[in-house]
Amino acid sequence: MLLRHGESEWNAKNLFTGWVDVPLSEKGEAEAVAAGELMKAQGVLPDVLHTSLLRRAIKTANLALDAADRHWIPVRRDWRLNERHYGALQGLNKTEIRDKYGDEQFMQWRRSYDVPPPAIEFGTEFSQDQDPRYADLGEQMPRTECLKDVVKRFLPYWEEGIKPDLASGKTVLVAAHGNSLRALVKFLDDISDEEIAGLNIPTGQPLVYELDDDFKPVEKGGRYLDPVAAKAAAEAVANQGKK
Amino acid sequence: MLLRHGESEWNAKNLFTGWVDVPLSEKGEAEAVAAGELMKAQGVLPDVLHTSLLRRAIKTANLALDAADRHWIPVRRDWRLNERHYGALQGLNKTEIRDKYGDEQFMQWRRSYDVPPPAIEFGTEFSQDQDPRYADLGEQMPRTECLKDVVKRFLPYWEEGIKPDLASGKTVLVAAHGNSLRALVKFLDDISDEEIAGLNIPTGQPLVYELDDDFKPVEKGGRYLDPVAAKAAAEAVANQGKK
Repeated sequence: MLLRHGESEWNAKNLFTGWVDVPLSEKGEAEAVAAGELMKAQGVLPDVLHTSLLRRAIKTANLALDAADRHWIPVRRDWRLNERHYGALQGLNKTEIRDKYGDEQFMQWRRSYDVPPPAIEFGTEFSQDQDPRYADLGEQMPRTECLKDVVKRFLPYWEEGIKPDLASGKTVLVAAHGNSLRALVKFLDDISDEEIAGLNIPTGQPLVYELDDDFKPVEKGGRYLDPVAAKAAAEAVANQGKK
Repeated sequence: MLLRHGESEWNAKNLFTGWVDVPLSEKGEAEAVAAGELMKAQGVLPDVLHTSLLRRAIKTANLALDAADRHWIPVRRDWRLNERHYGALQGLNKTEIRDKYGDEQFMQWRRSYDVPPPAIEFGTEFSQDQDPRYADLGEQMPRTECLKDVVKRFLPYWEEGIKPDLASGKTVLVAAHGNSLRALVKFLDDISDEEIAGLNIPTGQPLVYELDDDFKPVEKGGRYLDPVAAKAAAEAVANQGKK
C-alpha cells in the first residue's frame, strides 16, 4: 500500500521542496489521520512500514498508523525513499519559476524523465550535505535529481528492503513522496519513460497494489481506498504552478 | 538515555494501566515535546530508538524526536519494553483499590518485587490476549506480572536488542514505562530486590546513563537533563494513590 504524505507547509506555499525537511500543514495532518481511518474502516492494515528520512512522510505515517491502531508495527526508514532532490530549485516558488523560465522549461524540470534541474551548491541554505542523517551517503549525496535518478536509487531498496517483507506475506505500507512513489508505480506498472510524465499521485490517499507471486500487480494502477477523493486530489497536483 | 512516557489519560484518571493501550493526555504530549527540546538544547541526540508496543511510549518518542530533529533515526519496537502487566487490576482505580484492600496489599501489588497482582482472565475487556500485536507471544503472553517477571523478560532484550547498538557506539534512546525502566535501572545500577521498591522514575524526564566498556554506568543513578524537574516529578509518582 502506497501513501504520499499529506500537504506540507511548502506544498501549501507552492515552493519546490525536495529534500528540505518541512513539516506537514494542519491540512496535511488531517489528511494523514483520515488516511489511517480509511485503512481501519476497510480493514487494510499494514504489518510493516517503510518511510523516507523526511519529516512529512514520517509524520504522515505516524498519524495514519495511530488512527488505524497500527502504531506498533515495525518501521524501516531509508533515504532511498526520499523525495526527488530538486537541486537549485529547492526553496523557490513554483509560479515564479514558471513565469521566469516559461512553461516548457518549468514542465521539463518538473516532469521530464531524464533532465534534472540545475545542481544545488553544497553549503547553501537549502542543501542537505551537512545534515547528519545523510552522513553515510558520501559520493551518493545528490546535488540534483531527475526521476530517472530516483528510479535508479529506489530500485535497490525495493529489492533489498521491501521485497523481503512482501515475500514473507506482509502487508507493506510505503509512506513516501510524489516522485519516489512515481518511481515505484512506474516500475510496478511498467510505465514508459514518456507516459510517466502524466502520472500524478495525490497526497494522503492510500493506494493498494495486490501483487502476484512474481511481485507483479494483479490489477494495473492499483486501487485507491477512496477512488473519488483520489481522482480530485490527483487533478489538484497536476495543476500546481498554474495560476 | 531513558525516557518514561509522558502522562497518559489513565495516569491522569489514576487507573492501573499495564498493557491497556491508552493515549497520552494533552499534558503528556507537552511533556514529550519538552523532553525533545531539552535533548536538543543540551546536544544529547539519540542515534537509535527502542520503544515498547504501547502507544504512550511510541507517541512520546515520536513527539520528543520530532522536537529534537531526530525523527529520522532507526526505530526498534519490542513487547519486552512494555509496562508491567497489571493483571486483574488493569482498568481499576488506584485509590479505590487502596481503600478496598488496604495500604499494605496495595503497596505489595505496586511495589513488591516478586508478588504479582491477581491474574487477568483472557477474553475480558482489559486483557490483550486477542491483540494482533501479541499474536506471536504464545505461552509468553502474560496474565499478570511482578517486577521480577519484567526483569526476566527485559534482560534478553537488553542483550539482543540494545547492547549491540551500544557496542557500535550509538546513543540509544529507550522510550518506555515506569516498570520496564525500573527493571533497566535495577540492572544497570545493581539495585537490590528490596531497594528497588523505593525507586520512582518520573514521566517525561530524559535520564542519561553513560556506560563504560563493560556497559556499566560511569555514574550510578545516571543524570537527568533537568535534575530539578525530575526530582519533583518522581515525588509525584511516589504519591500516586494517596488522597
